[in-house]
Amino acid sequence: MQIFTRPILEINLNNLLSNFQTLRQIAHPAIPAAVIKDNAYGLDAMVVARLLYDKAAVRHFFTAHASEAQPIAQMLGDVTIYVLQGCGSDSLELFRQTPQLRPVICSPDMLEFWRSSPLASSPAAIQIETGLNRLGFREDELSRLSTNDLRRFSLVISHLACGDEKDHFMNEHQLNNFQRLKAEYFPETPASLAASDGVFLGGDFRQNMVRLGAAMYGINTAPYRPNQMQNVVSVKAPVLQTARLPKGDFVGYSATYRAADERSIAIVSIGYGDGIPRSLSNTGKVFFPTASGLFEARIIGRVSMDNIICDITAVPDIKVGNYAVLADDFYTLDDMARDAGTISYEIMSRLGKNPRFDRRYKY
Amino acid sequence: MQIFTRPILEINLNNLLSNFQTLRQIAHPAIPAAVIKDNAYGLDAMVVARLLYDKAAVRHFFTAHASEAQPIAQMLGDVTIYVLQGCGSDSLELFRQTPQLRPVICSPDMLEFWRSSPLASSPAAIQIETGLNRLGFREDELSRLSTNDLRRFSLVISHLACGDEKDHFMNEHQLNNFQRLKAEYFPETPASLAASDGVFLGGDFRQNMVRLGAAMYGINTAPYRPNQMQNVVSVKAPVLQTARLPKGDFVGYSATYRAADERSIAIVSIGYGDGIPRSLSNTGKVFFPTASGLFEARIIGRVSMDNIICDITAVPDIKVGNYAVLADDFYTLDDMARDAGTISYEIMSRLGKNPRFDRRYKY
Repeated sequence: MQIFTRPILEINLNNLLSNFQTLRQIAHPAIPAAVIKDNAYGLDAMVVARLLYDKAAVRHFFTAHASEAQPIAQMLGDVTIYVLQGCGSDSLELFRQTPQLRPVICSPDMLEFWRSSPLASSPAAIQIETGLNRLGFREDELSRLSTNDLRRFSLVISHLACGDEKDHFMNEHQLNNFQRLKAEYFPETPASLAASDGVFLGGDFRQNMVRLGAAMYGINTAPYRPNQMQNVVSVKAPVLQTARLPKGDFVGYSATYRAADERSIAIVSIGYGDGIPRSLSNTGKVFFPTASGLFEARIIGRVSMDNIICDITAVPDIKVGNYAVLADDFYTLDDMARDAGTISYEIMSRLGKNPRFDRRYKY
Repeated sequence: MQIFTRPILEINLNNLLSNFQTLRQIAHPAIPAAVIKDNAYGLDAMVVARLLYDKAAVRHFFTAHASEAQPIAQMLGDVTIYVLQGCGSDSLELFRQTPQLRPVICSPDMLEFWRSSPLASSPAAIQIETGLNRLGFREDELSRLSTNDLRRFSLVISHLACGDEKDHFMNEHQLNNFQRLKAEYFPETPASLAASDGVFLGGDFRQNMVRLGAAMYGINTAPYRPNQMQNVVSVKAPVLQTARLPKGDFVGYSATYRAADERSIAIVSIGYGDGIPRSLSNTGKVFFPTASGLFEARIIGRVSMDNIICDITAVPDIKVGNYAVLADDFYTLDDMARDAGTISYEIMSRLGKNPRFDRRYKY
């Protein structure tokens, strides 16, 4: 008899590397930088950065926070890591200790802070606002900078709001803004506008450097056509128990499911504590690979912290010890996200943070 | 000039301890066990277990997985930790190494597995099914156990489906099932039916041991009346930048928000990568404590991985370096969960896993 209790998170580093190389080719000759913020979307920034450094000679990285960047810089040595949230009193010491880190300055206030700090003459990047209305210098703020200020930056970046919608008017609007502001204020400064989604929008968007994140992790950042990326994340979890569900019985918290007739159920050892969205309650899918093919089953009742309950009435021969597949090549996190009413970025970021997973890297 | 970049997660251990003591008093004379699965709902199981061991003499704990229980057992020594997912081939070695761990056996298959293992004579608990239709022996399975099998368990447990709804028919239904099955099959075995919510349902539900989790962490598990627990989790994040949002401009990914007139916005350094639900896009609230009182502001546009954008038009004098409060006594994770369409358990579990937080324990 086989019984297993731990869910398994499988991360295919071959596919991650292959995705990176594909994106790099599309973006050529732009410098391919790797976005490893949020612990590489949960997949482990140390592992991903080491892989890209060794196997793809990546020397430029982006994180959100200095605290995320420091261990990477210490591990790799000769790299440049741009810190998208910039710098503050709570991170200046990390920048001082780690010369590979460069803040992305987003505002006159932050520039003033950096300029008044002991690191004033260290390299920094600047973010300019072109339509997302998030972090970045607005045009009137740029116009008040001195020539010296404008020339101090090693990189000028902006970020697209709708890069995953090919024909969205915002893309041209932001590209025009970026090109105009760059020509006026940063004619000599290397530039970066595109993240993964922008890479697919055409040459003008690629500028000098592209910031490769989501697509490298297998997310379809061009959902207007089939995914050109390889799947990176697979999730499976063991069937802990099977049972007969009598007609009329309820399932799970708040008794949200009631059996209209007798059903067979499997209790599977994974839940929202592991990062499976609770919004998959009564709607999510799991899959069972069997001798007679792949069978789909439905999550019934509420997703709980450690378990889901699946209706396996139509699935032959499911036994304790079998694994239910929650995400894989044939049903990716993009598919799960659609069923859960969110985006795969959010799910990936959650899954990857869970220490309860038996985490397996495929090389 | 002050600038900060890191979000802050504050965990009030005084309140956590006070909640535990309140619950223990209500449940007296039942043994109060602490539920510290999912890394103590994200709040750090090592910290919480150490606190409860030292300050409340807790010696009984519950985790979901053996991998969660082992470090606690090694740290504390003379404790008993029940493992709710039971045991399998992927955890047997942990049970062998750690005699303080006891699997909660959920099925005949798992009992057979345990009985065939080298640990056959070690103590174990049993879960019985009374209406949740999740893990646990069904009645027909109990009826097939030998007297020896029935007597081998040190604890018999079950779990309520609707314990947070005082008058739900399921509560009496499950209590009756539990009492009947216990009387028939486990007349001498110590019993546990109630988690936090069940503690408030009355004496019959409390049995010999109560499993205190959610309410200890400040969650209102009796939402039919005001929370009797103290708030444990506070979340705040710094304003990285303020800006004018021109009339007609869009905000955030996919341009889901458009300014009907000119607005003031604050870009705040926290996002779904930190555990803030993306479902708060265009609906979530943040709060600004100011000299003239507490002001509420709305999240506009999509929640992104590292940032949210807030409409601060009506909030006086917000500057870079100020903190936006996302959760605190006056707007708890229960409130945030209501706005996000989920439960605070899920949000707490996510927040607590994030290493980007500046995590502060208040003693």
